[in-house]
Amino acid sequence: MKTLIKNVHVLSMDRHFSEVKDGFVLIEDDVINKIGHISELTSQTIDADTIIDGKNGLLIPGLINTHTHAGMIPFRSLGDDVPDRLRRFLFPLEQHMTKELVHASSDYAIAEMLLSGVTSFCDMYYFEDEVAKSSKKMGIRALVGETIIDMPTCDSSEPSGGYKYCERFLEKWQNDPLVTPIIAPHAPNTNNLETLKKIVTLSEKYNAPITMHVEEMTYEMTDFQAKYNQTPIEFLQTLGYFERDFILAHCILATESDLDIIAASNKKARVAHCIGANTKSAKGVAPVKQMLEKNIVVGLGTDGPSSGNTLDLFSQMRLFANFHKTHNQDRALFPAKEIVRLATMGGAETLGLADQVGSIEIGKKADLTLIETESVNMFPIFDPYSAIVYSANASNVEAVWINGRQLVSGSKLVEQKLKTIKETLYSEMENFVVEAKKL
Amino acid sequence: MKTLIKNVHVLSMDRHFSEVKDGFVLIEDDVINKIGHISELTSQTIDADTIIDGKNGLLIPGLINTHTHAGMIPFRSLGDDVPDRLRRFLFPLEQHMTKELVHASSDYAIAEMLLSGVTSFCDMYYFEDEVAKSSKKMGIRALVGETIIDMPTCDSSEPSGGYKYCERFLEKWQNDPLVTPIIAPHAPNTNNLETLKKIVTLSEKYNAPITMHVEEMTYEMTDFQAKYNQTPIEFLQTLGYFERDFILAHCILATESDLDIIAASNKKARVAHCIGANTKSAKGVAPVKQMLEKNIVVGLGTDGPSSGNTLDLFSQMRLFANFHKTHNQDRALFPAKEIVRLATMGGAETLGLADQVGSIEIGKKADLTLIETESVNMFPIFDPYSAIVYSANASNVEAVWINGRQLVSGSKLVEQKLKTIKETLYSEMENFVVEAKKL
Repeated sequence: MKTLIKNVHVLSMDRHFSEVKDGFVLIEDDVINKIGHISELTSQTIDADTIIDGKNGLLIPGLINTHTHAGMIPFRSLGDDVPDRLRRFLFPLEQHMTKELVHASSDYAIAEMLLSGVTSFCDMYYFEDEVAKSSKKMGIRALVGETIIDMPTCDSSEPSGGYKYCERFLEKWQNDPLVTPIIAPHAPNTNNLETLKKIVTLSEKYNAPITMHVEEMTYEMTDFQAKYNQTPIEFLQTLGYFERDFILAHCILATESDLDIIAASNKKARVAHCIGANTKSAKGVAPVKQMLEKNIVVGLGTDGPSSGNTLDLFSQMRLFANFHKTHNQDRALFPAKEIVRLATMGGAETLGLADQVGSIEIGKKADLTLIETESVNMFPIFDPYSAIVYSANASNVEAVWINGRQLVSGSKLVEQKLKTIKETLYSEMENFVVEAKKL
Repeated sequence: MKTLIKNVHVLSMDRHFSEVKDGFVLIEDDVINKIGHISELTSQTIDADTIIDGKNGLLIPGLINTHTHAGMIPFRSLGDDVPDRLRRFLFPLEQHMTKELVHASSDYAIAEMLLSGVTSFCDMYYFEDEVAKSSKKMGIRALVGETIIDMPTCDSSEPSGGYKYCERFLEKWQNDPLVTPIIAPHAPNTNNLETLKKIVTLSEKYNAPITMHVEEMTYEMTDFQAKYNQTPIEFLQTLGYFERDFILAHCILATESDLDIIAASNKKARVAHCIGANTKSAKGVAPVKQMLEKNIVVGLGTDGPSSGNTLDLFSQMRLFANFHKTHNQDRALFPAKEIVRLATMGGAETLGLADQVGSIEIGKKADLTLIETESVNMFPIFDPYSAIVYSANASNVEAVWINGRQLVSGSKLVEQKLKTIKETLYSEMENFVVEAKKL
């Protein structure tokens, strides 16, 4: 099965930032087989089963969302701009999440990601078996982690019940081509010491990556200072977390010493940076400049639909540019090209998928996003990276392929109906909405 | 001529933030004639010529862009992320702007604004007679100001030649229903004292508002400190600017004393705040919290397509929320509702149009924007203001009316073809592109 995508500006995002203007990409089964200039097409016989005219669009590696909560679509636009929203809205309402609601929400969230060009994501929430099933059905590449937290949750009446759920989950999803099961302790301050230790052992047993919210909250920092005279990262290091594959979400408050710990892990530890959620909640700007100076791997994430409100990386790239330039008082810092790299190859490295995806290179999996340039906001284009970071929005995504399978065409889902997914979610949300209105 | 827009969530943005869910708005000729709940439609005979089904979309007053440069579309994505871009790219290339290119660019910029729900804008650039003609042709409401600057420009071989151009321009465009001619000195530091004084007199003679870039640049502040031992705003006050209708763009570096001067003008002076452009160029975050505490009128602006890259206010609202919350370390500051107010009524007050537009109220001009809620990013909506600020993007704009005339329908221009506008601009850009590639 061969698919030819032609008349595109290929932005490979490989280490040399190789580009082909008026280019083509040939997919064979699930793999990128050829990249070239369209003039080569006339001189060669390319026997593709499907030919896609990219109409001078920008073809980039699929965008990678390194941190989200696909089950949380029902929370979107609820209690924004409210202090301590986590404890006032999220924790109470999470008691009313059901298996069916998480599945329906995950289908919807994945639809939203696909339509905005996201081809891989890293998730943590409850009933994650449903998110895994939903990912497989929708055809997206995913790292899926069951949340472990030291309190009763919607999918476990026992505190830390997520641990048991997680063990079964890791067992079940071994060796799936799209879904990688991972372990997702909620945060250093919301788990007890015993559980935090067991998680490292579990990670060793299944060779499973860990993802965790780390150094996102001011009280998290002060609690650990008071209790252990350490930062959360220093504390987690003593437990062996930095010898595991470890995806740290946020790290807004990371100290110089914390960054040194992350750097010393030799890329075992990586950072999922969520600029939109972090700044909407006024938590601050993570020290990404310093992270990159220390060769720490960083990817971009949207956080959940209640925190960042959209699951697309275009809004994250724009916010990233403006925040980090202003924060560092340097307009030349993080040129657009580097930001697109963070949203693609940076994300792939963060999720441990860089050998498979993150760039358009021969032999890599065909995870591709086509951005159309016909809409009014996309002209002129002197610099395609600038156009992606500063002009484009999620609605400019025209087509998406994952593992060579076309999942978005003409800005619509190919295999699913968005209307049906929305109707299912809407009906599953009935009780949730009743409870939400009580708050 | 009556148009009925029904099945919409009306967000009036009046002083009480009145809303009608499942509502309708009736337009008669160019004016809003009735606002109500759709249940009233069954009990009354509404004899509309045109009936629009809003499909549960959000109907808001047209968005107002208080500062832009419609002639600068050719510069988009050129030299982003480069230090001192103004002098390295903008000033040299501006020598190659022609009357025809400004006209074509203005058509394109206005198309972009209409398609993103902008119904009024305030412009300053060169060959502004073309921008005025373009505005009239496209049907948008505009304050249009010829730039006056103390150097030769594309439309004047003499330094400060814009002054003469401006006088003819003010004469020509008196009493137009859509276009208000204004005076646009470039900045305090780019005009000589004599010209700055003459501009106040000219403003008095024609009762014309003034708009100017003020306190955007660090060197502007230090120059005035060195030369006059004053801030630019203190200096302009001595010349009488604060007794005129005065729209100050940026004010990033405004001091406490500057804000007091603006406040003391009793709303004669208003601020066009361009958060996207200001932070993309790492210039900083203007003290908008302090402005509003002093009852200073503030509106939102995109700045030109080279500075802010898009001309839509959705990206500005999102950036505004995240930047001002983070800058003030307060997630509850500027709830979404207040930000939508800044982008509508705040903008109308800034441009001196609040008696005509800025809110959906009976008797006001029918400048309306319909935001669809069927796209994937627009569900669920617990709070419509949150959905607009944190979820929506420019592509969610479904329909737009100005003075009761429908200019956008089904997310497309009604009276013009975008493709034709783009082709014309593209052909006018030929020489500009050649010169741009030399830099």
